[in-house]
Amino acid sequence: MITMINVFTVDPPNQQRLVDLLARATNEFVRRAPGFVSATLHRSIDGSKVTMHAQWRSIEDYETMRADPEPLPLFKEALTFARFDPGMYEVVRTFSPPEGSAEGPSLT
Amino acid sequence: MITMINVFTVDPPNQQRLVDLLARATNEFVRRAPGFVSATLHRSIDGSKVTMHAQWRSIEDYETMRADPEPLPLFKEALTFARFDPGMYEVVRTFSPPEGSAEGPSLT
Repeated sequence: MITMINVFTVDPPNQQRLVDLLARATNEFVRRAPGFVSATLHRSIDGSKVTMHAQWRSIEDYETMRADPEPLPLFKEALTFARFDPGMYEVVRTFSPPEGSAEGPSLT
Repeated sequence: MITMINVFTVDPPNQQRLVDLLARATNEFVRRAPGFVSATLHRSIDGSKVTMHAQWRSIEDYETMRADPEPLPLFKEALTFARFDPGMYEVVRTFSPPEGSAEGPSLT
């Protein structure tokens, strides 16, 4: 499994437009692609970024989706007003609060 | 709940050093801070990035942790060889594969 963390930078007045575009591309095309596992769309509190965190079965599955001509017009439109910094990752380690902490499962 | 997605950029020969430093800071200090919910540490496949995805109960909890002097030497050491692009987000939406797809839960 691989994780894509793609950071888009925008002028804050364009943040909602980018959120709408990426939500539409993901809902209509990306999540239907073979090997898609899950995605979460984030808006930055300061208005300047929109970040998509997505999990894929393999690098090949992600690259096949990116080569699909169907969602391409949406991605191209996004790049007319946003900068795109992609990142392809593997998970190194996850962290939880210590057991018994006020935020841990034992007291909630 | 807020999500921090902090992207560190490094020269690839320094990626493992940064992974070790961030894992140590998170394990020894960050995860013990009030309001910490979870964190996942990612290494980019190309070697040039390390990204921490973390959930916090509130902005205030995150800022209180960042003001703690204890982990500060580890963060400062990281900044001697890595560039830090922080991002504070709220989740807009999550996406799943369509029901009944080969990757969906119904066929696995």
